[in-house]
Amino acid sequence: MARVLVTGATGFIGTHAVEHLVAAGHDIHCISRGGGDIPNVNWHRADLLGDEMALTALVSDIQAESLLHLAWTVAPGKFWNDPENLTWVAASLWLYRAFATAGGRRMVIAGTCAEYDWSAAHASKPLDEQSSAATPATLYGQAKKSTHDLLAAAARLDGLSLASGRIFSPYGPREKPGRVVSDVVMNLLRGQTVETTEGTQLRDFMHVSDVAAAFVALLDHDTTGAVNIATGIDLPLSRVLREIAALIGQPDLLRLGARAMAANDPPRLAASVSRLREEVGFVPKYDLISGLADTIEWYRRQLESPGTN
Amino acid sequence: MARVLVTGATGFIGTHAVEHLVAAGHDIHCISRGGGDIPNVNWHRADLLGDEMALTALVSDIQAESLLHLAWTVAPGKFWNDPENLTWVAASLWLYRAFATAGGRRMVIAGTCAEYDWSAAHASKPLDEQSSAATPATLYGQAKKSTHDLLAAAARLDGLSLASGRIFSPYGPREKPGRVVSDVVMNLLRGQTVETTEGTQLRDFMHVSDVAAAFVALLDHDTTGAVNIATGIDLPLSRVLREIAALIGQPDLLRLGARAMAANDPPRLAASVSRLREEVGFVPKYDLISGLADTIEWYRRQLESPGTN
Repeated sequence: MARVLVTGATGFIGTHAVEHLVAAGHDIHCISRGGGDIPNVNWHRADLLGDEMALTALVSDIQAESLLHLAWTVAPGKFWNDPENLTWVAASLWLYRAFATAGGRRMVIAGTCAEYDWSAAHASKPLDEQSSAATPATLYGQAKKSTHDLLAAAARLDGLSLASGRIFSPYGPREKPGRVVSDVVMNLLRGQTVETTEGTQLRDFMHVSDVAAAFVALLDHDTTGAVNIATGIDLPLSRVLREIAALIGQPDLLRLGARAMAANDPPRLAASVSRLREEVGFVPKYDLISGLADTIEWYRRQLESPGTN
Repeated sequence: MARVLVTGATGFIGTHAVEHLVAAGHDIHCISRGGGDIPNVNWHRADLLGDEMALTALVSDIQAESLLHLAWTVAPGKFWNDPENLTWVAASLWLYRAFATAGGRRMVIAGTCAEYDWSAAHASKPLDEQSSAATPATLYGQAKKSTHDLLAAAARLDGLSLASGRIFSPYGPREKPGRVVSDVVMNLLRGQTVETTEGTQLRDFMHVSDVAAAFVALLDHDTTGAVNIATGIDLPLSRVLREIAALIGQPDLLRLGARAMAANDPPRLAASVSRLREEVGFVPKYDLISGLADTIEWYRRQLESPGTN
């Protein structure tokens, strides 16, 4: 059992990560603006964007060995180029310094496939952690990349072990509305027609519980640097949407190709997972069908009794 | 005449930059912890590392069109890997947001040749602004590079014009003790023996008044991205030291090779200056001999009546 500090614990990946940490018997401390209601967790009400001295004192009091830093701005649709990304870089640097000063040993941050160069030359093959990340296409990607660059350089000097989990395409229970899987599942469950792009874009979809478990595995390991958090299997979005429609029993409500694809949507975002599989030793629990079935079941329960999760 | 906001105005390059800005007739506002005494300048006492809301309000009040951001941690010997570098990244992001929100149009930040990859493969030829900067060797280099990466991405979205002047080897009046040129000049003027390395390392030395004038030229121009601030002529350090000793008339007091070179001192840091010369149109005023002569003259006056500059 280790004392673990978690930020973003009330978020999409965070709630699942805390469940895995609880199951593993860790001593869990979460910093959250609004507190939280997951049992067997110590909640500390604080704003990561607030008073830096108060945050430093709180982190010093908690005396955690490990820090899983998942909090970031995630305003749907807006977060890609939200100026708030700069604020989160600054907050992450402060959090790191507070944790390092308090004697912290291991820190894992949430990275993103948006750190990679999405131009065709690079995205034609699976992105490995050494792939070009010279020019992220979005401020979000740049902010995540610069945060990792800075913290990796500082951690080397401080003798602190630091890794970044680069998230590709998570889906599953508690995903916010406005994302493709959550919207398609909800609409089909309601018997509504769903209009999508042709769905030729290749993505690596991973059940959020597996994403969260991979972060916990990474936190418990000593691998440093960037590690892709993905299944290693990239599929056309159309395949995923057809499986959802088939599992729900509403294939006729799915209208692939009714919408044009966004011009800046990269055709392929495939992940090399050799670091995650071989170095960290992580294997996902869900395959596509079992992961989608679990997700659909969760949304079905939501429709039947909203608010339960 | 434009309204210009300057940070780091009391520093080595900053004092010279303000002199050039005054000469050009700009409306100059400086933010400084301790205030300053250069005439024809509006001094605003504030701490860039202090309360962010107060800083934002101050920047909003000043309503400058241009911002020359030179302030950074410069503790001699320590700054290369000082954790304070992270604090200055965060402060620079806050300053940028305050300036952009206040309607600022043009921002120039101080970069460094330490942003480049110093490994032999890259440093064997002059460093141009497209040269690899994948892995700066120091936290200082990484912090300056990440600051530029982040602000360039944000500025593109905000429609703000942003450039970074990458400083190589400045020397001249008001340089802090503990740097090679200032120490050698002072010791030789005092008639003391000076022990140095062999001085085979190649560097691009530029008189600080020219460095500062280049920053002012860059601020008044619309070039974006990184621009090397250098002469384009790299010389062995031994040549510079011999010229100093000859100008002072104390060649026998210089003991080249008495000290071992630091293992991590790169053998060559040469700058391509085509962006500075051709795009910005800047030509330095001093050559090596006139620059060193001016510097020696300044230090001689310091020895005769300390405190005068």
